[in-house]
Amino acid sequence: MLTVPAGIVFDLDGTLVDTTYLHALAWWQALELSGYVVPMARLHRAVGMGADRLLPHVLGDGRDPRHDEDMVNAHDVIFATWHDRVEELPGACHLVGLCHRMGLTTALASSSAGRDLEAMLRVLDHPDFDVVVTIDDVRDSKPSQDLVAVALSRMGLEPSEILVVGDSVWDVKAAQAVGARSVGLECGGTSRCELDEAGATWVLANPDELCRELTRAVSSRRDSQSADSA
Amino acid sequence: MLTVPAGIVFDLDGTLVDTTYLHALAWWQALELSGYVVPMARLHRAVGMGADRLLPHVLGDGRDPRHDEDMVNAHDVIFATWHDRVEELPGACHLVGLCHRMGLTTALASSSAGRDLEAMLRVLDHPDFDVVVTIDDVRDSKPSQDLVAVALSRMGLEPSEILVVGDSVWDVKAAQAVGARSVGLECGGTSRCELDEAGATWVLANPDELCRELTRAVSSRRDSQSADSA
Repeated sequence: MLTVPAGIVFDLDGTLVDTTYLHALAWWQALELSGYVVPMARLHRAVGMGADRLLPHVLGDGRDPRHDEDMVNAHDVIFATWHDRVEELPGACHLVGLCHRMGLTTALASSSAGRDLEAMLRVLDHPDFDVVVTIDDVRDSKPSQDLVAVALSRMGLEPSEILVVGDSVWDVKAAQAVGARSVGLECGGTSRCELDEAGATWVLANPDELCRELTRAVSSRRDSQSADSA
Repeated sequence: MLTVPAGIVFDLDGTLVDTTYLHALAWWQALELSGYVVPMARLHRAVGMGADRLLPHVLGDGRDPRHDEDMVNAHDVIFATWHDRVEELPGACHLVGLCHRMGLTTALASSSAGRDLEAMLRVLDHPDFDVVVTIDDVRDSKPSQDLVAVALSRMGLEPSEILVVGDSVWDVKAAQAVGARSVGLECGGTSRCELDEAGATWVLANPDELCRELTRAVSSRRDSQSADSA
């Protein structure tokens, strides 16, 4: 069973907002504009990486890197056309609020930045994270541990005290790299067994299920504390 | 190792053409027009079912069934706007041609029909299937066995002689229901372990890998035959 951490580091896309499929679509269209055809399932599983890592991952080192900037720009423009249509994933806003009420330190660690980040935070009704780390704050993107490591240091917590919550294998790997436990959520379209295989400590359906697990963990801790003092 | 069947029943969407993500997107937009918000990952995993089964599956029986026709029409219109952008999945055309050259009976069994089917066959450069069964030919859609059962009877083959090739758990379940072996392909975005868990006899990456496996199976059969006659 999940234990109550001192802090939670949240991924954004596919974890709190329903965007992994829109990112996959935007990459698919962006790559096609530069003459590359990549199956959408392959792009879907690469979402969550920073763009700097995603392009070599899906196109290989044989690509013409002069197209990289065009493809990143095209992805960003196409994705921005979807900003107004993005939906919260089940329980996302409630989850961030619950963590605050429980006294946990919360951090957002996202490969997104700029107008994408602003639009997604608007979808979530501007949640109040204690720490926000974006791709602009680090040298290297997920699956590197940089985003999570910077979040951790700004939270003033040890790896053993936090939980990293994400939807992609890259989130799970970033958590492992700093030595933190992770919750993999299936709501970004990566399956339970893929997240398990990547090394997720727990796999849950969506933010809603994490709310229930945290509430259960708190009441179980309370029960054991009152048993100790009895 | 895969053995050479007498016939192959192919699914179309996500198996031969890269459309599962476009169907998920079209359903997501179509449902939203009727006021329903469903996470895209949930829609993605429902693609492959017929529309008659998909709507109760994703919305539950509590939905207002008076919206069903509107949602199906909206999906069809939105999906049709993507017809010209659909791509063949790696090795798809080559696979159908290879089956013909190997003397296998080929069937297409698809939950699609009408203009969607025509458009997808155009993407594949009009492959020559011996049998084509669509949703119009059956009473009940996948995961019911109807599509595969009708294909089987028109092919004049026994379940043990065929291989059902699809990308969704619904294809695997339809194959099981008639007692046939199945190949689950990961290229529609359903993962290896989900297809395994559903009971796929083999799980491969895409049509290209199936071409290689069939070629290997033929040469292994040839080797064992020449060993027998030696």
